[in-house]
Amino acid sequence: MRCFHLTVAYDGTAFFGWQWQPDRRTVQGAIEEAIYRVTGERLRIVGSGRTDTGVHAHGQAASFRSATDLEAHVLLRALNANLPADVRIVASREAAADFCALRQSTGKRYRYLIHNAEIPDVFLQNRAWFVYDPLDVEAMNAAAQGLHGRHDFKSYETSGSPRVDTCRTLRDLTVRRSVDEDARSLVSIEVEADGFLYNMVRNLVGTLVEVGRGKRPIEWPAEILPARDRRLAGPTAPAHGLYMLRAFFPPTP
Amino acid sequence: MRCFHLTVAYDGTAFFGWQWQPDRRTVQGAIEEAIYRVTGERLRIVGSGRTDTGVHAHGQAASFRSATDLEAHVLLRALNANLPADVRIVASREAAADFCALRQSTGKRYRYLIHNAEIPDVFLQNRAWFVYDPLDVEAMNAAAQGLHGRHDFKSYETSGSPRVDTCRTLRDLTVRRSVDEDARSLVSIEVEADGFLYNMVRNLVGTLVEVGRGKRPIEWPAEILPARDRRLAGPTAPAHGLYMLRAFFPPTP
Repeated sequence: MRCFHLTVAYDGTAFFGWQWQPDRRTVQGAIEEAIYRVTGERLRIVGSGRTDTGVHAHGQAASFRSATDLEAHVLLRALNANLPADVRIVASREAAADFCALRQSTGKRYRYLIHNAEIPDVFLQNRAWFVYDPLDVEAMNAAAQGLHGRHDFKSYETSGSPRVDTCRTLRDLTVRRSVDEDARSLVSIEVEADGFLYNMVRNLVGTLVEVGRGKRPIEWPAEILPARDRRLAGPTAPAHGLYMLRAFFPPTP
Repeated sequence: MRCFHLTVAYDGTAFFGWQWQPDRRTVQGAIEEAIYRVTGERLRIVGSGRTDTGVHAHGQAASFRSATDLEAHVLLRALNANLPADVRIVASREAAADFCALRQSTGKRYRYLIHNAEIPDVFLQNRAWFVYDPLDVEAMNAAAQGLHGRHDFKSYETSGSPRVDTCRTLRDLTVRRSVDEDARSLVSIEVEADGFLYNMVRNLVGTLVEVGRGKRPIEWPAEILPARDRRLAGPTAPAHGLYMLRAFFPPTP
């Protein structure tokens, strides 16, 4: 058996998230179906993390073992020819026999997109969180700096899928405003950590937006860490603004 | 009766074009329905140009006469509250009583977007024409320069809705490559003229792409003008890469 490492992009709008579910259109299910059509194998793939309904990805990682003779780049083209247009394999490589996209991931990076304007943009409908109130992006970014480093993030974990160890290391959390080619005012929040708790990115974003709206001071997002109480943080930002950018793995020898 | 001038943005993916049709979801029909809900009036609006199924707009212009007492900015908010999320009124103003978005337009500007890459981008699915062959954008832009000015564009008119006078003045036709934030390689073609023949932008784009692929010389798009024969030009580029950017009107006194 050989092991493959896929990098996957998807528009999450029409999917019930990443994880396979019976009778539901999921990204994992779509890829497994494409693998079946290409190799004849009914198998399970492993993602570096589950994404919820509506969440997008530029670079989700997945791994699986297969008896196929196809080279990785041929497999990429064959899978794309058998996938719906809202999922694309953007990279494919053969990995070490014991490679696992879930267990061996050393971190992940996400982007959260906010459209901050008076009128929603039709082209960002399912692609960004529309926020009407003008956001103080400098205050949000200053608040974000206070969360860098290793902390117990239990205050930012939605219950339902609790982790025993809720300490994580935030390697980056940056908020910036950008105006794109079509003069849309976007606020982009990028976050990288060695791992994430359930809904952690969306809870961080919802909390930073409270600061951006001027409802809370810059110190607040860091101040609520010690209490380890989800009720102290801001609301959960909607799923459709979230993009998984990439998963990190140890360098291959 | 008062006259209103609306500026309209829409994602054309789920519409059967601009123009009202019985039992079809059209942009005109959606706006007329919203006007009915807001003012109680069953009326017809006039667009500065019809767009086909799948074509998008950042700034389509429309006009209509109404007995409403609402101020233009209140009307904007009321219409948006009654429109589906893939259509937005982005500007609204009261115009002179005889204003007509179709007859008084002095020109229009469009953008055509090509995604030029090895793998289609899931987020550009219905938003850009995917072209796999590497395009020579400098050659395309050089070819475009040869079309500037006043010419008979009958070679670029799809039959079906023929104009008597097929002369138009191209004020701008520029091809450039841009790499966006997500490192996507986009080719953007912007074109402005005093008016357009049926499918003229898409026929110009399809022709310039033949030059970009190296199949035709830079001089070719201008050389085929005198023949006034559609069969000599390149194929019609698909609708979903086309965006109406704006319509121009004489300055109001």
